[in-house]
Amino acid sequence: MTEFKPTEHQHVRYNPLKDEWILVSPHRCKRPWSGQTEEQQDPAPDPNNPLRAGAVRANGQKNPMYSSTYVFPNDFPALLERVPEPPAPEHPLFQAKQAKGTCRVMCFHPDSSMTVPLMTVEEIMAVIDEWINQMTELGRRYTWVQIFENKGAVMGCSNPHPHCQIWASSFMPNEPRVKDRTQKQYYTQYGKPLLVDYLEQELKNKDRIVIENEDWVALVPYWAAWPYETMLLPKKGRPQRLTDLNDQQKKGLAEIMKGLNTKYDNLFKCSFPYSMGWHGAPTGPGHNPGDAPHWLLHGLYLPPLLRSATVKKFMVGYEMLAQPQRDLTPEQAAQTLRECDSVHYKLKK
Amino acid sequence: MTEFKPTEHQHVRYNPLKDEWILVSPHRCKRPWSGQTEEQQDPAPDPNNPLRAGAVRANGQKNPMYSSTYVFPNDFPALLERVPEPPAPEHPLFQAKQAKGTCRVMCFHPDSSMTVPLMTVEEIMAVIDEWINQMTELGRRYTWVQIFENKGAVMGCSNPHPHCQIWASSFMPNEPRVKDRTQKQYYTQYGKPLLVDYLEQELKNKDRIVIENEDWVALVPYWAAWPYETMLLPKKGRPQRLTDLNDQQKKGLAEIMKGLNTKYDNLFKCSFPYSMGWHGAPTGPGHNPGDAPHWLLHGLYLPPLLRSATVKKFMVGYEMLAQPQRDLTPEQAAQTLRECDSVHYKLKK
Ligand SMILES: O=P(O)(O)O[C@H]1O[C@H](CO)[C@@H](O)[C@H](O)[C@H]1O
Ligand SMILES: O=P(O)(O)O[C@H]1O[C@H](CO)[C@@H](O)[C@H](O)[C@H]1O
Repeated sequence: MTEFKPTEHQHVRYNPLKDEWILVSPHRCKRPWSGQTEEQQDPAPDPNNPLRAGAVRANGQKNPMYSSTYVFPNDFPALLERVPEPPAPEHPLFQAKQAKGTCRVMCFHPDSSMTVPLMTVEEIMAVIDEWINQMTELGRRYTWVQIFENKGAVMGCSNPHPHCQIWASSFMPNEPRVKDRTQKQYYTQYGKPLLVDYLEQELKNKDRIVIENEDWVALVPYWAAWPYETMLLPKKGRPQRLTDLNDQQKKGLAEIMKGLNTKYDNLFKCSFPYSMGWHGAPTGPGHNPGDAPHWLLHGLYLPPLLRSATVKKFMVGYEMLAQPQRDLTPEQAAQTLRECDSVHYKLKK
Repeated sequence: MTEFKPTEHQHVRYNPLKDEWILVSPHRCKRPWSGQTEEQQDPAPDPNNPLRAGAVRANGQKNPMYSSTYVFPNDFPALLERVPEPPAPEHPLFQAKQAKGTCRVMCFHPDSSMTVPLMTVEEIMAVIDEWINQMTELGRRYTWVQIFENKGAVMGCSNPHPHCQIWASSFMPNEPRVKDRTQKQYYTQYGKPLLVDYLEQELKNKDRIVIENEDWVALVPYWAAWPYETMLLPKKGRPQRLTDLNDQQKKGLAEIMKGLNTKYDNLFKCSFPYSMGWHGAPTGPGHNPGDAPHWLLHGLYLPPLLRSATVKKFMVGYEMLAQPQRDLTPEQAAQTLRECDSVHYKLKK
């Protein structure tokens, strides 16, 4: 039989962080697409945008004339701070538990058209500083503080103004709960953090690296599910949480965020949609800096586009009921992103 | 503090099949929606539809003039039968394995406009019979045979002709792998299948039942993630696989599928999009009827619509990075579906 070629022959890959497998079927990229396409145009600036400096929001409150970042409580939060406790379960198959929390919105910039790749490194550093403020404050009370950004209409984002959300909860959500377990297991077995070992291999191999600087690497994980999924990993000092970053790491992070987002936008010449967010060691009472040596802080970008600005990957039937499936290898995705221009297409003369 | 009301107070619920939690935030349904909407119209019948009886497909092959169901190999399969094996992993964090399989497409009806709720019970029974044929044939060779239907453009379905897909694989995918584990654990601990115990409670309680007949129940699971998610459960004989169904169960299934899909279409007066599929005990060499007493066969409908024919629930940032979140309780969803008319809106005079 012929030799195995990952770019030609389907196979499954293991995601050690989620303890799950991914089906990689690169030969499938050849099929024609006649399904739904997504409109992907920059919306016209809305003078009534409720996230803009000075705007009046749905609840009648007026935003200040902010000039950098701006954080306010989500007007329609999924998590409230004070809720009564559900009764104890009477049957093991009907378990409900209390969930307390808070939801905030954080604007990145007063100008609605200033997305991350168009912002200056200093402006992105202000975003990172505010993320750290929020983690510090909310991390005192809450077990898990999820920072995430839904970008683009296709990702359910109802407002194009550059912003992210912060949902803090009294409970540990599924995704980080599994990652806490898998990283702990690896640490117990090998005496080193899973992601530190992983990054070491990736830096030797280079195949999946998109962009790097002195302090950070952006790579397409070996086990990526989304077509152009990437992970941001710190190279030095093994930070466990965003609050562990020093000034140089913050600056390096701002630079790599700008660089990666520039490549993303250049890939299909559009403001690249995604959900992104941060995973680090759990917080809350009883947690202290340095107490989770099995964790390595990492950022995740989960973008849906597959072939063009209008054709996304649908994670539907087989993916929902059986297992994620991808149509190009992570190495192919990394190479394509690597080869994208490092100057934003909108800034080209 | 006030008394806990599930329709007012956020809480988390446990999904014992997936060993995961769901955040239920019913108060959130009040927020206004200004994000992306989905076009949801019946596409005009396409005389060149490649799934139609007699049509010529992309690869030049011509469909026969079929009059009931029709199965053919997927022209762009994610799984092929013959592929070389990847080399053994050199590092625990870089594991790839061989994946063999086959992908088929199954048309439900020669007429492109005949969706399940518009088909007769006899026509739906032909679909069920063919599912069982496929499971029998492919189940001899393959560990897992996933039958699934992606319906509607919003679910990545590129052809409105009523059809499903069958992907059979040499490996056990993530979702059934976890369900096999959780059901085995429950069976060991309580001596009864998890879903048999579960159904017993639901039949007493009635809150989450949408529709039932002598042999089947359609209910919104206590732990549903999608707004109008439902599960089809057999009432009698504890079938472990589709191939265990007797004639009466097949007829009852056809009837409940027609009934449930009629309510779905009536909910927002549209051809209701979803991904649906079947989960039962694993197959393949070494497996025999009756050998998996911890399993109960069940069907799953995972529909994305939340508020109307054009506004769906986005499972994005928080859901991808932390945990699924829903905006109405499963009991509210069940009641709304229960109250939908049992005559299809298109068949009303
Ligand atoms: O094979 P189809 O229907 O063209 O493709 C659809 O279903 C597949 C299985 O769920 C997915 O992998 C694809 O992303 C989706 O577009
Ligand atoms: O709060 P938003 O941005 O309006 O809402 C969006 O993100 C949330 C968190 O991922 C999701 O629950 C919603 O379905 C989505 O539309």
